[in-house]
Order: sequence, then structure tokens, then C-alpha cells
Amino acid sequence: MNSGNPHRVVVIGSGFGGLFGTQALKRADVEITLIAKTTHHLFQPLLYQVATGILSEGEIAPSTREILARQRNARVVLGDVTGVDLDARTVTAVTVGRETVVPYDSLIVAAGAGQSYFGNDHFSEHAPGMKSIDDALELRGRIFGAFELAELASTPAEIERLMTFVVVGAGPTGVEMAGQIAELAHRTLKRDFRRVDPRSARIILIDGAPLVLPTFGQRLGGKARRQLESMGVEVMLKTKVTDVDGTGLVIEDEKGERHRIEALTKVWAAGVQASPLARILAEQTGAEIDRAGRIEVLPDCTLPGHPEVFVVGDMAALDGLPGVAQVAIQQSRYAAEAIKRRIAGKPEQAPFTYFDKGSMATISRFSAVASIGKVSLSGFFAWLMWLGVHLVYITGFKHRVTTLLHWAVSFLGRGRSQRTTTEQQVFARNVIKSVGEDAYPTLPRVAEDRPEQPKAG
Amino acid sequence: MNSGNPHRVVVIGSGFGGLFGTQALKRADVEITLIAKTTHHLFQPLLYQVATGILSEGEIAPSTREILARQRNARVVLGDVTGVDLDARTVTAVTVGRETVVPYDSLIVAAGAGQSYFGNDHFSEHAPGMKSIDDALELRGRIFGAFELAELASTPAEIERLMTFVVVGAGPTGVEMAGQIAELAHRTLKRDFRRVDPRSARIILIDGAPLVLPTFGQRLGGKARRQLESMGVEVMLKTKVTDVDGTGLVIEDEKGERHRIEALTKVWAAGVQASPLARILAEQTGAEIDRAGRIEVLPDCTLPGHPEVFVVGDMAALDGLPGVAQVAIQQSRYAAEAIKRRIAGKPEQAPFTYFDKGSMATISRFSAVASIGKVSLSGFFAWLMWLGVHLVYITGFKHRVTTLLHWAVSFLGRGRSQRTTTEQQVFARNVIKSVGEDAYPTLPRVAEDRPEQPKAG
Repeated sequence: MNSGNPHRVVVIGSGFGGLFGTQALKRADVEITLIAKTTHHLFQPLLYQVATGILSEGEIAPSTREILARQRNARVVLGDVTGVDLDARTVTAVTVGRETVVPYDSLIVAAGAGQSYFGNDHFSEHAPGMKSIDDALELRGRIFGAFELAELASTPAEIERLMTFVVVGAGPTGVEMAGQIAELAHRTLKRDFRRVDPRSARIILIDGAPLVLPTFGQRLGGKARRQLESMGVEVMLKTKVTDVDGTGLVIEDEKGERHRIEALTKVWAAGVQASPLARILAEQTGAEIDRAGRIEVLPDCTLPGHPEVFVVGDMAALDGLPGVAQVAIQQSRYAAEAIKRRIAGKPEQAPFTYFDKGSMATISRFSAVASIGKVSLSGFFAWLMWLGVHLVYITGFKHRVTTLLHWAVSFLGRGRSQRTTTEQQVFARNVIKSVGEDAYPTLPRVAEDRPEQPKAG
Repeated sequence: MNSGNPHRVVVIGSGFGGLFGTQALKRADVEITLIAKTTHHLFQPLLYQVATGILSEGEIAPSTREILARQRNARVVLGDVTGVDLDARTVTAVTVGRETVVPYDSLIVAAGAGQSYFGNDHFSEHAPGMKSIDDALELRGRIFGAFELAELASTPAEIERLMTFVVVGAGPTGVEMAGQIAELAHRTLKRDFRRVDPRSARIILIDGAPLVLPTFGQRLGGKARRQLESMGVEVMLKTKVTDVDGTGLVIEDEKGERHRIEALTKVWAAGVQASPLARILAEQTGAEIDRAGRIEVLPDCTLPGHPEVFVVGDMAALDGLPGVAQVAIQQSRYAAEAIKRRIAGKPEQAPFTYFDKGSMATISRFSAVASIGKVSLSGFFAWLMWLGVHLVYITGFKHRVTTLLHWAVSFLGRGRSQRTTTEQQVFARNVIKSVGEDAYPTLPRVAEDRPEQPKAG
């Protein structure tokens, strides 16, 4: 086919799906163009460690180009994909305001999902999500910045508002964030302030479900909850968030009663919404879009009428599979295999089946929960497994001793060596934007709490 | 004095002067308020490593609050100092748009210096300086982003413009930046691109002086120059920059002839301008301001008529001392000693004298120059010294094995594990801002360079 020219594969996205799909085609006689809007592959499960000052952004977001440096059949293009023309078989991407049109013979769409605010997009400026490096650094600035402002505050109410941290969503990301903010407040920062005691910070984890980590089941969810509570996290379940603003949020409990929580710092880890590319593809194929914006794909991960177009990972709806890294990885490898078979003229594969390797979530240093088939693990052993899997993964790309060492050191140490924020990110500026200029009527004059002294001379 | 209340010391700035002055007062019976506009102490000599992807921002900018956590007589206030009232003895700082007024008995002003564009402030958006974490991350985005855009460019002229990097100023920062960009282009990135060869990048170092590293003298300057040239850096001396815009700059050579260099990425490492606080202090005392905006201080580092106000480091003009870390450290320790003596009723010290411990600059991995008194060193041994001094310094704050390990690993490895930029910082967006939308009329459609293929089915 293609009169001697290599088969052109375009891959959209540099997340788990995009990267593993590209790597699975390493030895194939294809020409791959990977188009992504960031220059890095983001290891999203550790984003919370960037937000809470444990890891640097470079440690969880290696350069896509560097990972693929030795894969000569792949090239990387920085660009925002704005359109796919299924008839013309082209992808349109925008870089520096200018369009690039890339033709394909096969297409793997792995553009992932963003945060969903369930129709309340105005929550987002007050409660950033946890989906990108930008999000994590923004939250880093807000979390550390809240303590900075609390140190300058004067009234108890104001201090409480500044030192209350609310995490919405009790899935793995929310649990990990709440746990790490608690460790930060109760341990890391305990000697750093003079007027406020970070140990008095409130950390609240809210979810509408009756369980923490609901996908892990009753037993592990219960263990995770008790572990969080022992770390000082208040867990509010069967609780909905009905409004979020600059200085707090409104929750509705089981009985339908509404309460307001004053809290400057809110983290949204509650829901996901597939990339808008799903809709663009649905319009051209008549495929269904589900509530999370995902496009329904055929059992072989392709679009109806377009066997050359695969949609994988968080963007695809298939058999109710969850939006986790393993699904994206396995689907993109399945897509790569399908492309290789077609080029070789081999028969098509059987429909995609997901092999569940299990799932894990860490709650604090040395404590995690893991669910592997019928086996449930918790505590230190689960944490060791979690650590091993993550270490192997993140260092798998580079085969460099330095990366492993770096990561191990960051990870095992108690330090928060990555507290640095830019001036642009220093909380102050975001607060002004997010809460308005009148939110701090009582910000003290530091001089006021001491009687005027006679001057030394 | 002060009827039993501790002596109040306000320190402005968390750089070398502010931090060391505060630490020197650790055992004194004083109450210190350190006011700074960032939450970190910036180890400025390694800023170039953040800009070129070697170190993370956290590794060179530890939290000021964390460094001072165990110094109970010091508190840290995040704020921009907007005024000093020498008669009322108060400092005014702004945090989140609100003023804080802090009274003092003694004041140490160590607000440092920013970049100077010698009256051409409009250069700054096209050629960022190297003074803050914000600067370094902006430059990181621009440098790595330039290669991303070059990969998408089509005409040779456009590729050349994108792959030309100009560093203005051949002092230590400029030399280090030029050396590291050269190493990046010629070594680190050599396998990462498919259409452009990063090894063909031009790196140009420009200075009006006749010598590289002029403060190191003829011999070391010559060695540094040859080393840079062997790394592929074009060194243009006795050359002035007369204009800078989005897509290039205009230089004037020795003979007064002007040339234009097309270059998207420019780094300004040419001059410094003392903090505007110097002028605020000068207006109230009649002290002189020099060309670099520094305020002339008395031989004991105080302001005329205000023995309780010390100005130290890059902001102070005294005996022509250079703007280096050691001067700031020694002056601030001198100021701390003066405060302690006054409290104890001891006689004043002799005027400040600077003990020159020598200076060092690194050119590449394993190669540096050092000038210590009459001794000049260069090459590997000088580099080892440089490494030792910096390792001791940066780990001195934390006494943590993890920090040392981290830093050693980052530093000795060849990797650039810190290439990550935020989406906000991705070059694309800055380019649009900086060069205007018409600067890339020829940005290619990727499809164009391949003949249209018959479709696979």
C-alpha cells in the first residue's frame, strides 16, 4: 500500500496513550507524527507531589522529545489540535497562532481529559483542578501562599479562613492531596511561622459518595478514611458542593442542609471531562458522547465507519472502563498492533480486552492501599509496591541513574525542597484576582500589635 | 535602651545580604523582621542552570522561612517594600494590595539590584534578564521553545533566526549562559529533532569590553574566551548593542559600523540597576546615587545622619566594591555586629573592610576560572573548587543529606531533567507577545513538504 511510501501515523497527545502508542510502533515501517500541546509527557499520578512541594515539575514531566529521541520513525510537533477532518484524513494543529495541517493514513487520538466542574465552570478560578503542570504550580503557590497570608492576618476568623484547605473529590488524587496538605501543615511547616501555628490548619476532604476511594471497595475505602482522619483530615462524605467563591464554598449534606465553609484554598479533584476533540469526532461519525464527554468507540477502539481512526484512554467510552493510565496504555498498544497488522496484511485482532493490573493509591508516606484482582492490600507493604511501580515507571524512559537517584531522594526524604514559586505565582497576585480587593479588610498593620516604642538613637 | 523591650531590627531583602545579616543576629537579644518580596532565598549564581534545564527552581531557591525556622528571634514577612520613613523609623510593605507598617530601631536594607538596560527598558520584553526565578523560567521556556519552533519552520532564514541565541554581557552570568546554551544545542539536544540539527545553532556572546570576564584579568579572560570558542560560542567583543526587537538586534562594532543579527532568543546579562529603594533613601538623606543607582554609604555602611540604617550589598556604593555575594555577606555581617555592639554598649567597630576571597566562574562542566588574590587557576582544578564552594554553600542551610544528594546528582549528571515549562511559559505564547503576529509569515504547513499520498483503506 501507499506505493512504497511509509504508512503515516498521526498520534494526538503525549500522555499515557499517545506516548505508549508511539513507542509500540518503534519497529514498524511507519512515519509517526506525535502532536501535543505541551513539550512534556506528564506523569499525572504524581502531580499532587509537585503541588505540595515534594517533587519538581521536571521530575514528573520529562521531555517527550527526549523520551523519543532514539525512535527515528517518530517526530514530535508542539501544537494545539483544533480539528480533525475524517474525510480528508488530516489533523489541524495551531502553533504560535499558525495552522499546521498533517495528513494521516492511521490516526490515534489520545487527547485525554480535563477537569470537569459539572456545568459550574466559574468554580475553576477559585478551585483549580489537578490536571496539568500549570495547575500543580498554581496550587503550590496558593497552598504555601495561604500560610504566608495567615502569618499576616489579625482576626481569628481571617486566620481560620486562610488556614482552611478544602479538597473536593475523594478519589486517588483528592485523597493524596488532602493527605499531603495535612502532612505539610502538621509536620513540615510546624516551625516556620511565628504568629500562626500551621498545626491548627483544617484540611477537609469532601465527596458526594458514601465512601473514600469508592473504586477500591468498602474495606480499603474504610482503611483510607481512618488513615486520613488519624492524620487530621476531616472527611465529609455524602456531601455535595453547591457553590464555590473566592473566600469559601457552600456544601449540602445528606439531609439537604446547606452550610458555608470559609476557606481561601480550594482544590478541585472531583470530575473529568474528555477533550473537546471527542465532540469534533462525534459530529463527523454520529458516535455517541457520554456524560463525561467521552466518545463511544467500537470494540476495536475505532470510530464507526473509520477503521483507521482509534480513540483511546480518557477520551474513549468502551465497556465502562475507568479513566486510568493502564486503560490508555493497553488501548494505545492495541491500536499500534492493529496498524502493524494491517500494514503486514495480517488478519484483524480480536476486540480489545482490558487486563486489570489492579490499582493503588497512596495516603501518606509509608501507607497506601492496593487492590489487585481479589486481593486487597493496605499499609506499608502496599506502599512499597506503589513506590516500586512508580519508580520503575518514571525511570523507564531514561535509563539514567541520575533520574532514579533524584527521584528516590526526593521521594524518600521528608524534605519539601520544591516550595519555590515564581513572583507571578506568589499567592498574593492570585488572591487579588480570585477574591477581589475587598476580601481582606482586616489585613493588619504589623505595627499595631505592639505598643509604640521610644526610639533608640 | 527600649525600656526592657528587645531592640527591633528590620531587614529588607532575602538575598545574600538580608539572609546572612539575619543569621548573624541569631544569638542577639533582638526582634528581627525580614521583609522580602519572594518567599525564597535565591542563590543567584546558579540561576543560569535553571534557565538551561539543569536544576529545578527549588534546588537554588530554598524557602527563606525554612532556612530561618529555628531562629526564633526572626520572623519573615512576605511583602514588597514601598517606602522607608527615616524620621518615623518605619518601613512600609505591601502584601495583597494592603499596607503593613513595621517600626524599627535598626534597619538593614539589602534589596539588591535588578537588571539594567541602560535606559532602554523596552529591550526587556525581547531580552529577559537573569535576576529572578521568574526570569530563569521565562528564559527556559524561550530557549527550549525556540528549538520547538525551528522544528516547524521551513525557510533557512527562519530556521537560522530561531536557532540563533544571543547573550549580551560577558561577565560570569553571560559566560555561563552562553556555555550552557552551547552545550544544550551541541550535545543534549542533538538527537531530539528530525528536521533541524540543533548542532547548527549559533550562540553569540556580545560585550562592549575588550575582554571576556574582564574582572578576572587578561590571562583568565583569554582562557575563558578560547574555551567558549572551542565549545562553538561566537565571541564578539568591543561590540555595543544599539537596538533589540522581537526578531533580532542591532550591534555596533569597534569601527562604529552597525549590523543586524536575526535572533529570536536574546538574553540580557549586561548591567545592573540598584533597587529603587536607594532613591527613596537618598531623597531623605542627600546621599549620592551613582550611575548604577546605588546609594553612597559612609565607611561603616550607614547613611549620613542615620547610624541606625545600614545599606549593604548591590544597593550600596562603597570604595568601588563589586556587586558580588561576598560583599553583601560581609557587609551585612558587619552591620549585625554593629547592632550587637550598640546593644551591649560596646565601642563602634573600625570602618568596614572587604576581605576578597576571590572569584570564580564556570564555563562548562569540568572547566572554570578562579582568581584568588594573586593566584589564577583555570581548568578542571578550578572547576572542582567552584563545585566544592557551591555545594557547601547551598547545602549549608539545610543540613540535609537529601539536598546534597539531589544537588550533586543534578550537577554531576549530563541530563537536563528540568526542561519542563508550563503551558503559560511555552515559548509560543511569549513569542506572539514579543514579536507580533506577523513575524512568522512562513511558518509551514507540515504537509507541504511531502507529495500527497494516495489514501490507505
